[in-house]
Amino acid sequence: MSKTTVYEVEVMFGDCDPAGIVFFPNFSKWMDAASLHFFVQCGVPPWRELVKTRGIIGTPLLEIHTRFLKPATYGERLQVHTRVEEWREKVFIQHHVVRRGDDVLCEGRETRAFCIRHPDDPDRIKAIPIPADIRALCGG
Amino acid sequence: MSKTTVYEVEVMFGDCDPAGIVFFPNFSKWMDAASLHFFVQCGVPPWRELVKTRGIIGTPLLEIHTRFLKPATYGERLQVHTRVEEWREKVFIQHHVVRRGDDVLCEGRETRAFCIRHPDDPDRIKAIPIPADIRALCGG
Amino acid sequence: MSKTTVYEVEVMFGDCDPAGIVFFPNFSKWMDAASLHFFVQCGVPPWRELVKTRGIIGTPLLEIHTRFLKPATYGERLQVHTRVEEWREKVFIQHHVVRRGDDVLCEGRETRAFCIRHPDDPDRIKAIPIPADIRALCGG
Amino acid sequence: MSKTTVYEVEVMFGDCDPAGIVFFPNFSKWMDAASLHFFVQCGVPPWRELVKTRGIIGTPLLEIHTRFLKPATYGERLQVHTRVEEWREKVFIQHHVVRRGDDVLCEGRETRAFCIRHPDDPDRIKAIPIPADIRALCGG
Repeated sequence: MSKTTVYEVEVMFGDCDPAGIVFFPNFSKWMDAASLHFFVQCGVPPWRELVKTRGIIGTPLLEIHTRFLKPATYGERLQVHTRVEEWREKVFIQHHVVRRGDDVLCEGRETRAFCIRHPDDPDRIKAIPIPADIRALCGG
Repeated sequence: MSKTTVYEVEVMFGDCDPAGIVFFPNFSKWMDAASLHFFVQCGVPPWRELVKTRGIIGTPLLEIHTRFLKPATYGERLQVHTRVEEWREKVFIQHHVVRRGDDVLCEGRETRAFCIRHPDDPDRIKAIPIPADIRALCGG
Repeated sequence: MSKTTVYEVEVMFGDCDPAGIVFFPNFSKWMDAASLHFFVQCGVPPWRELVKTRGIIGTPLLEIHTRFLKPATYGERLQVHTRVEEWREKVFIQHHVVRRGDDVLCEGRETRAFCIRHPDDPDRIKAIPIPADIRALCGG
Repeated sequence: MSKTTVYEVEVMFGDCDPAGIVFFPNFSKWMDAASLHFFVQCGVPPWRELVKTRGIIGTPLLEIHTRFLKPATYGERLQVHTRVEEWREKVFIQHHVVRRGDDVLCEGRETRAFCIRHPDDPDRIKAIPIPADIRALCGG
């Protein structure tokens, strides 16, 4: 069964824009933090460890799709509920719901791949098949 | 005919993450700047003027959908090509392509609405029908 | 006696730079959040309330002076210890120490003033004498 | 003679806070970009090259001291004027003035050191004496 984790964020003044509400790319930043938090909660080491032991630099994004339902402002505490919705061979879909208590503020799907440095050119990155042991840790 | 504008960005060190590549929410930030740049290039005043004259606080996002094709890093100059793909009654779809010269790095669609402060509660915002004069300025 | 508050931050992946450590301006962002948190903990309303009731838009910075002693990275929990070191007529000095448990990572002093919109030009801002009631709430 | 370089920044909507002005840590981000731009203009390779050839990961900050004189807002073009004010054995002082045409908005001094990964622990960093060839390139 897929696991769901909850990552809590407190909105800072500097996260908000001249309209007084969260500048929307910050929701993507928080979903990204929630994505990594999901893996760490499932027992996967952080990327700075995995890069040393297995060459995995993280799970860069191939695609994001996000809907914004209600704004948030500084001082508020938000909860990002995260799970893996689908595992494919080389990519997986992570689903996030950002809530403020009972209010749903924002919902997003991310398509990600586990990546290593490209063997022919360390400045490029390359997707690898999803490691079976990591998938198993995540209840996939 | 729809207009297309080009907004140039130079990637900073602080835009990049531990993998050495642009942290993806920055692409959303740059598309947002390109969105505003599009309107200003079309002759629409910046939001801080429009809020005084017409109560319009800007064009908050309802939805984004972005595909990431190639990474970028600091010191590189990128070009965001922006146009309005579709005007509906209350929302419009803005389309952005982020290029590094001939390379397409990232492509995104934003669903946005012109918004004012809610008449019953200034802490909320409210979408209004797309102002005909603004649409006309944008070649809509 | 001056009060001290503690504001907790969890470092996100997106807060870190290509060297894998916190990109230093984020320490300023967190001290700013800790500054506002200090006032709210002392019973001062957030700026979005004060601007309506008293015209005060916040406490913009006149000067910062920060020393960086040790780096931090994502996944770590930091604590910002904040107090007002000195109240002058129009400005005050806020002092922050960022710790990771017993380790001191960063220390900073901010010179701030309470500001309103300039009466002659709403696009400019203007410092006011420090409100006595706010100072009293903060144990000044 | 010391060189001075100029780095231009266009302020984005997302760089501004609920007061409608640039959120101050962004000035630090821009000074950091101007610092790197200074070295690249002097002929020093970017850090991602230097880390491969000489192990140098960049010039992390030991201390910053910044004064904020006038605010800026989105759509404005700013110029960061950068030079090295002083070279010591292990650190150097970089001086930045942020202007909007003739207006001086912000002025800052940064104390930086060239750093490598610590030989005993790659998770730590270590300052090295300032490389003579790099200093010479910078007119030091």
